Amino acid sequence: MRVLGIDPGSHKTGWGAVDVEGSQVRHVDNGVIFLDDDRDLTVRLVDLAHRLRDRLVELSPDVVVVEDVFVRKGARSALILGQARGVVLATCGMQGLTVKSVPTSQVKLRVAGRGRADKLQVAEMVRALLGLPELPFEDAADALAVALSAVGDVGTAMARAPSPRRAKGRDALLELARAQGKA
Amino acid sequence: MRVLGIDPGSHKTGWGAVDVEGSQVRHVDNGVIFLDDDRDLTVRLVDLAHRLRDRLVELSPDVVVVEDVFVRKGARSALILGQARGVVLATCGMQGLTVKSVPTSQVKLRVAGRGRADKLQVAEMVRALLGLPELPFEDAADALAVALSAVGDVGTAMARAPSPRRAKGRDALLELARAQGKA
Repeated sequence: MRVLGIDPGSHKTGWGAVDVEGSQVRHVDNGVIFLDDDRDLTVRLVDLAHRLRDRLVELSPDVVVVEDVFVRKGARSALILGQARGVVLATCGMQGLTVKSVPTSQVKLRVAGRGRADKLQVAEMVRALLGLPELPFEDAADALAVALSAVGDVGTAMARAPSPRRAKGRDALLELARAQGKA
Repeated sequence: MRVLGIDPGSHKTGWGAVDVEGSQVRHVDNGVIFLDDDRDLTVRLVDLAHRLRDRLVELSPDVVVVEDVFVRKGARSALILGQARGVVLATCGMQGLTVKSVPTSQVKLRVAGRGRADKLQVAEMVRALLGLPELPFEDAADALAVALSAVGDVGTAMARAPSPRRAKGRDALLELARAQGKA
């Protein structure tokens, strides 16, 4: 089962795909869609839709997981972020994909063990869990974390982990990583 | 020149089209795209994109004007509204249309003469200005107001009105309506 995580943004949108097979989680690819800040918002959103669609066609995920951002910066920032998020959701929906939402706090809690983990901690956990040679770019790391945070829900990856329901998501994921000799 | 105004929302999106020719403004059509609240957000946004695209193809506007909402209800509401707005912008952009943003306060000021006019006042002004037999549905009236508020910018409608730059938008529009024997 291929899970694609997406961290939407009006300037850059991170994406990261993992394959889940039994207790194995394997990194597929990750990247960031950078939008041209000099262009009009409408043009940027169309660009985001087209480039994300290309990724979806290329990666052919079974499930897409999009971060459900908690916005601290006020209504204006939330509106702007919402515009990119809406385009991401609609683009995935048009490809017939099922989209799940995962709150940021859950992503951090499950991947880094703390709901308030900072971006670097999340990126480091993602690198360790997936055995990546180096830290992914910030937004791509977030997107991979989003994908990983949903693995327990969408796949069978955690089925063999001890008491997956009771274990903290991070422990279960670390268990997985250890089983794969990556952490 | 055909101007399409849009009032985006995550539950219903109003639209209204007017034709502008010299000092004449003529109502073309208006309506509301209702989304099924029981469906998943992604499904609703795809539905919005498809149904709006159908309207765009049918109406073939020269310019689209989208309300740039000022959100008072906090970040969560702004994020939700932003999602619908982003889909509206991208859908218009994909049809190669130019999209203009007009702040809600400007819409109210230009159409109803007050930045804090309520929805009913706006709807009544829209009805009077366009000589409609009855009040349009709330969100459609808002969308028509959005279209009308941009007329001075996108068209030549106000070119013949006395001192259009100095006159309040509402006065200039009323002038127009009177010239057309509608108010």
